[in-house]
Amino acid sequence: MTRVTCDLTVSLDGFVAGPNQSLEQPLGTGGEKLHRWQFQERDKNAAEVAGILEAGAYIMGRNMFAGPGDGPWDKEWRGWWGEEPPYHAPVFVLTTHAHEPLVMEGGTTFHFVNEPIESVLARAREAAGDKNVAIAGGASTARQFLSTGLIDELRLHIAPIVLGSGERLLDGVGNLKLEPLEARGTSLVSHIRYKVG
Amino acid sequence: MTRVTCDLTVSLDGFVAGPNQSLEQPLGTGGEKLHRWQFQERDKNAAEVAGILEAGAYIMGRNMFAGPGDGPWDKEWRGWWGEEPPYHAPVFVLTTHAHEPLVMEGGTTFHFVNEPIESVLARAREAAGDKNVAIAGGASTARQFLSTGLIDELRLHIAPIVLGSGERLLDGVGNLKLEPLEARGTSLVSHIRYKVG
Repeated sequence: MTRVTCDLTVSLDGFVAGPNQSLEQPLGTGGEKLHRWQFQERDKNAAEVAGILEAGAYIMGRNMFAGPGDGPWDKEWRGWWGEEPPYHAPVFVLTTHAHEPLVMEGGTTFHFVNEPIESVLARAREAAGDKNVAIAGGASTARQFLSTGLIDELRLHIAPIVLGSGERLLDGVGNLKLEPLEARGTSLVSHIRYKVG
Repeated sequence: MTRVTCDLTVSLDGFVAGPNQSLEQPLGTGGEKLHRWQFQERDKNAAEVAGILEAGAYIMGRNMFAGPGDGPWDKEWRGWWGEEPPYHAPVFVLTTHAHEPLVMEGGTTFHFVNEPIESVLARAREAAGDKNVAIAGGASTARQFLSTGLIDELRLHIAPIVLGSGERLLDGVGNLKLEPLEARGTSLVSHIRYKVG
C-alpha cells in the first residue's frame, strides 16, 4: 500500500527557513545551516537521506520548484537540480502557471498541475506504483497536506539551531494526531518519525 | 563539577503551555497533554523522569511557584506540590515578593530571592554540592538562563501534540550553540538532550 510521506528539516524553534527568503537565498538568513546534516554527516544519516529519495512520485509546491515570488518562470527555468535531478521519478509541481512537462535526465519528469491537492495526490499515487508518494515541500505545501489529513508519515529532521524568525512549519496546521515511531540522531540532527492520523 | 541542567516539555510546535493560562489552568488550554509521558508512561521514561529530580538545588520562576499574575501570595501559599514537594533539596524562587523561607517536609526548602540570576545561580551551586543545579522552569526563567549562557544541558521532552498558540519556549532566546547528545523516545514523547554553548 502506497503511503504518503513528508520529510522536512526544521530548526529547533520550528522554522523551515530563516527570514529574508529570496531567489538568491531560498532558505533565508541562516537557513543553509539547517541542512548541514545531509552534507557533513551523510554517512551517519544514510538511512534518512535515502528515505527522502525512496518515493515513486513526488509532489512539490511552486516555490520549491522556482523560488518565492514570481520566480524565474519566464526564463526557461528547469529547477534547481541541474539536468539530472535526484528524484528519478515523476514530480508533480502545484502551480497555476501552465507549462508543458519537463523531461529531465535519469527518470525525473516535472508535471505542472493546477488541480486540487486531492486529485494531484491521486495522480501521484498512480504514478508511484507500489512505492510511496513523498510531499517534497516546501513548508506551505506540507502544511496543506498535513491539514487535510493526507500525510501518513511525517519525518522531521531537527537541526540544532535557533533561527528566531522565518517560515514556521506548523503554524496554523491545526490539531494533528501524531505518534512518534522512532527518534534517533547525530550531533548535527535529531530525527523523529511520526505516524499522522 | 556541578552542571546546570534544564528539563522542559514542549509541544512539537514549541509551546510549553497552551493559550489562556490561569491559576486554575496553569498549562493553558490543551497543555495538560504535554505531560502525559510522565504519568502514562512513567516506566518507559524512568531515566528521564529521574533526571528531572536528580539535582542538588533548583531555581524556578515566580509563576512556576505561584501561578501567573499576582497569584496567591497573600494566602499562605506553599506551592502546588503539597507538604512534601518532589525536590528534596533547596529551591530558589526568583521573585520580588519578600518572603521568609518555607521549610517543607522531605528536605525541600523554598528560598525567595530578589537578586540577579547570576548570584542566585552562585547560591544554588553552593547549595547543590557535587550535584547539578536544575532550572526547573517556567519557560521565561529558562529563556533568561539560556540567553545568558548559563545552562550547560538542555533536555527537551517533545510531546507529539500541536498546541497552535500559547507560550513558546525559544522565542527571543537568541542564537544558541546547541549540540544534540542523545535522542530517543516512546510513543508519547521524544527526548533530545542538548549540550549548550
